[in-house]
Amino acid sequence: MDSRIHEHAEILVDWSARVEAGDNVVVSVAEGAHDLAVAVADTLGKRGANLVATYDSSELARAYLRAHDGEFASNPAHELALINHADVYLRLGGGRNTTATADVPSATRQAHSRSRTEIREARMETDWVSTIHPTRSLAQQAGMAFEAYQDFVYNAIIRDWESLAEEMQQLKTLLDAGNEVHIENAKTDLWLSITDRTAVNSAASVVYDSHNLPSGEVFTAPGDAEGTITFDIPMTVNASRLQDVELTFESGEVVDYAATQGESVLREILETDAGARRLGELGIGMNRGIDRVTDNILFDEKMGETVHLAVGRAYDACLPKGETGNQSAVHVDFIADMSESSRLAIDGETVQENGTFRWEA
Amino acid sequence: MDSRIHEHAEILVDWSARVEAGDNVVVSVAEGAHDLAVAVADTLGKRGANLVATYDSSELARAYLRAHDGEFASNPAHELALINHADVYLRLGGGRNTTATADVPSATRQAHSRSRTEIREARMETDWVSTIHPTRSLAQQAGMAFEAYQDFVYNAIIRDWESLAEEMQQLKTLLDAGNEVHIENAKTDLWLSITDRTAVNSAASVVYDSHNLPSGEVFTAPGDAEGTITFDIPMTVNASRLQDVELTFESGEVVDYAATQGESVLREILETDAGARRLGELGIGMNRGIDRVTDNILFDEKMGETVHLAVGRAYDACLPKGETGNQSAVHVDFIADMSESSRLAIDGETVQENGTFRWEA
Repeated sequence: MDSRIHEHAEILVDWSARVEAGDNVVVSVAEGAHDLAVAVADTLGKRGANLVATYDSSELARAYLRAHDGEFASNPAHELALINHADVYLRLGGGRNTTATADVPSATRQAHSRSRTEIREARMETDWVSTIHPTRSLAQQAGMAFEAYQDFVYNAIIRDWESLAEEMQQLKTLLDAGNEVHIENAKTDLWLSITDRTAVNSAASVVYDSHNLPSGEVFTAPGDAEGTITFDIPMTVNASRLQDVELTFESGEVVDYAATQGESVLREILETDAGARRLGELGIGMNRGIDRVTDNILFDEKMGETVHLAVGRAYDACLPKGETGNQSAVHVDFIADMSESSRLAIDGETVQENGTFRWEA
Repeated sequence: MDSRIHEHAEILVDWSARVEAGDNVVVSVAEGAHDLAVAVADTLGKRGANLVATYDSSELARAYLRAHDGEFASNPAHELALINHADVYLRLGGGRNTTATADVPSATRQAHSRSRTEIREARMETDWVSTIHPTRSLAQQAGMAFEAYQDFVYNAIIRDWESLAEEMQQLKTLLDAGNEVHIENAKTDLWLSITDRTAVNSAASVVYDSHNLPSGEVFTAPGDAEGTITFDIPMTVNASRLQDVELTFESGEVVDYAATQGESVLREILETDAGARRLGELGIGMNRGIDRVTDNILFDEKMGETVHLAVGRAYDACLPKGETGNQSAVHVDFIADMSESSRLAIDGETVQENGTFRWEA
């Protein structure tokens, strides 16, 4: 086995999830993630954790969802009980076909998602971490050769996380103290309120409230939003291509939207529920190790010289204690390039211009 | 997809497990059982059941067990909760290497097994069914070409179960009324008491207390045992080969044992705990559709013209209400050929001679 798979597993278990002896761990294994799952099982065995592996197969999901009449039971007790008794949830992505569920009707998908709110929330109560194992399917999605894609993935994951965390702390400090973010570029002029919100220094570890490996972004939960933003980084959502998504906000709500490709998918997302038309996240990519778009949100949103916004559910970590942020069955990110003719300002002060942070200038 | 895979899934879900709308179902998927799992997901979706798929990978198990220090937590709460809230448990066997765990120390294996008694018992409280998807690895184990093995498996599984159930009922009636079974062949002279025990007409359905697909055996839980039996059907247990296992019983307990191959594995099994030296099952194979030994206990023990005994755990279904039968962390079957120079008698009356039942003569 490629020694990088074992390094990946150890970073995931030790740095990211902080697994300890006796922890009850659920490992969700995608169709193509077997090798990483074996390495994770090895590491969990060494740490004395308790392992249940679930099989997260897109083809199973497709068969089940297409066959079902769409009247899904609410939060099935066996799955909810598994998650409620788990300390740690490790999601090992990496399928064999990123479009495996392309022919599941979106109404079915939405109904299924809505039926699982408690399960999703229970999962977010665990020390959960989402990562991917590089597969040929993901290499293809990225437009890359398999070996080159493996190099890309491990360069993004196997790095000095403590040092990146220190760099990101500077931006977190500015966001925590600030009230208003202003994002500008050729097709964007957007104001977001962030008063009393706490930014997350997303250094790929649960101790930073950061749940993706790789990570390398600073994010918060905006309140009000006014203006228009265009997301020019193309992406795939629910197996459909989205290009140049443009959202216009008034009083925090999407009042107009468009896309040069995938507008119907965009509409379905925004119509999931009321919270799907409000923002759950503002994220600022700071991982310069991720140096290209690979059409995988886990990587793309962390790229340096980008910002992203998510419609839908907000993360509790960003909210004042006791306050409930935006609620929704969805959380879908869109990414904007900030490398040229752009400015990111907090309370009128420029923090990033044309992709360069002020401490880098 | 081979249409037989969908037929298999429907027999499993409808005839065997009797799944109904709203049932909470756990589907345990072996490394090579993906296609069957997709067909089962399709059928469960149609029936409106709730699906959690677990990944039952031998390679994961090997990595975990070898890395662990052997001090296993008792019945981890997340796994126990999953099973406790499940109505149905479907085990889809079919790996990619039947010897994938051959280098796990047997002490580790035993300690792990002992730590999971409650989980195992909770699983047996569900409507559980164990089946296999034909894989190249299992074809190899059987010494068969892959396509020939697929035909063998589907011939054993896709059949008229109601008709076989009626035939088996005759033997069940004799066993239920009987007190003592006598098994004789060239190397066997064994007496078993079966007073007050209830035989199971194992017709591959939970409504018959029958939990294997395919099935086709009648089994009960013997009490006392006196004499010697030689199991001349070779088999593989814990990735090790066992040949010509000979067990001698006094007052129900193994007092002497031997094997021409695999004697150390046999010793490990018998030394697991006190119950591992007493019998949990007497089974009589009646599935003449299974016409050859394939080194897979799920099939071999159902073969016509064979009997099998298991050391270890007894099934509650065979015991008088409220009575606890033999308890053990193991249940390991051994099979004897009864096709020649043999006699099976109940209370002195011959029921089968040289492989032919008296109603077949």
